[in-house]
Amino acid sequence: MAIIVCGTATLDTIETPSERVEEVLGGSGVYAAVAASFFHNPVQLVGVVGGDFPQTYASQLESFGIELRRLTRVENGKTFRWGCKYAEDFNVREMLFAHLNVVAEVPPAMDVSSMDAPYLFLANNPPHLQLDAIARIPRPKLVVCDTMDVWINTARAVLEETLARVDILILNDSEARLFTGDTNVVRAARAMLRYGPQRVIVKKGEHGAISVTESSFFSAPAYPLTHITDATGAGDSFAGAFIGYLASVNDASEAAIRRAMIYGTAVASFTIEDFSINRQTSVQFSDISARYAELQEAVRF
Amino acid sequence: MAIIVCGTATLDTIETPSERVEEVLGGSGVYAAVAASFFHNPVQLVGVVGGDFPQTYASQLESFGIELRRLTRVENGKTFRWGCKYAEDFNVREMLFAHLNVVAEVPPAMDVSSMDAPYLFLANNPPHLQLDAIARIPRPKLVVCDTMDVWINTARAVLEETLARVDILILNDSEARLFTGDTNVVRAARAMLRYGPQRVIVKKGEHGAISVTESSFFSAPAYPLTHITDATGAGDSFAGAFIGYLASVNDASEAAIRRAMIYGTAVASFTIEDFSINRQTSVQFSDISARYAELQEAVRF
Repeated sequence: MAIIVCGTATLDTIETPSERVEEVLGGSGVYAAVAASFFHNPVQLVGVVGGDFPQTYASQLESFGIELRRLTRVENGKTFRWGCKYAEDFNVREMLFAHLNVVAEVPPAMDVSSMDAPYLFLANNPPHLQLDAIARIPRPKLVVCDTMDVWINTARAVLEETLARVDILILNDSEARLFTGDTNVVRAARAMLRYGPQRVIVKKGEHGAISVTESSFFSAPAYPLTHITDATGAGDSFAGAFIGYLASVNDASEAAIRRAMIYGTAVASFTIEDFSINRQTSVQFSDISARYAELQEAVRF
Repeated sequence: MAIIVCGTATLDTIETPSERVEEVLGGSGVYAAVAASFFHNPVQLVGVVGGDFPQTYASQLESFGIELRRLTRVENGKTFRWGCKYAEDFNVREMLFAHLNVVAEVPPAMDVSSMDAPYLFLANNPPHLQLDAIARIPRPKLVVCDTMDVWINTARAVLEETLARVDILILNDSEARLFTGDTNVVRAARAMLRYGPQRVIVKKGEHGAISVTESSFFSAPAYPLTHITDATGAGDSFAGAFIGYLASVNDASEAAIRRAMIYGTAVASFTIEDFSINRQTSVQFSDISARYAELQEAVRF
């Protein structure tokens, strides 16, 4: 099945306790598309970059089997730039800057009407762009949506309108608490079902992830990583691998969803071993399968 | 196999965001012994109380099949009193007071030399009492030990001496971080293996628990509870059910340990549904089995 990932492609500046990198390839769409590409090709990446988006980064994405003809290039615009700084344990990060640039100025060209029934992932993006994507892509088989605190705080009405039209919402625990005002994550996830999604998946970082529907509960373990280089993109990678796996088996049953979350966990564990998508360039599918098997063993009783 | 639980029996004052109770039955030994009693009887509770320890509380413990002849009663002494206050989500608690009273004054009578090869749980207690128990109880089959921040901060040398003689250390995530100075819980757990235990189990509250040995990793899910009345005793209940199950099957293999952690999770989920051991008085083994089955389903993929 076709996969469309709508999201951002950014140039990131990241400070960790031990290192600093500048203008590396990042963005919700980039991390998600790369993760999805391990399971299914081609992945269509829909987004907007400026004329300053390096050709080497475009080539790197294409090497993963990602199609970029729907990644609009605005020659006289600037690419979204984002910066953040991590505390010692990577559980706390401080955003240093977020210059949306072309993302705020030019809507992506949604020439996707010929793609029938795709698996659609709306990676983190301003909610009006997510809503626009849903409106323009005909008959998606499955719509999965991510969001973040800034949109909950500044664009809640549009976000709620979006949620009413998605099948699966993926967000992290602090965002679920922020959205609902409820500190109990299980209760918060259940509360968010009322906004429309049939399923809410809450990512809890080092504590794994949970999936909640009206009638099911699944707890996915975290991969027991002991060395993290940069936590950026972990959530996007999780969601990208998640939809990539579902598209590859063309199945969104409870059983498939659970396996997809474990694949998401495995792929995200590689992402955070290096900056940008550097670690992914040397990951083989057999590496992902090995971590999937480790996660199986880690919860077996 | 015989079970000995060495720990405290206390009179607790607890404030939650919605309620306050005074002088209710509590203590690490009490919660652990009650939890163990669901799996194996009799459970020997070793500790010290004052002349003011209510007979009704003693009778309540006996109704669970707990033997109290090694719970020393100091007629002219006062029972350990402990008070704490919980924040909204029960993840943060503030200790209001801890009057050790007889626990600081009178060592428990360790008339246990006739109990051969027991399963021994050293519930949270001053480390010198834990060490003394290990020295006086002959040939324990398995020694499991809990501790807490106050002993890590004030009695580290004795605690380390104790750890060198225990098989399994159980502690919570903030304590593992405090002990090792490492914010990564998996790394912290592995680091603590160097102090002697063959296995370190880290309790993470709403995020479940992990078990680490030199060659294994297990991730136990949390029970998805959406209503908590009082989180006090959850960790002690987890550990008590854990050793109770192991004693009942007389097996401390990796497979048995994993099942024991799930039983611990199930029993702890009942503890926090009410104050003190109130909820436990109406729990049947079939209720525990039902939650065990739910936890199996929650991680199946």
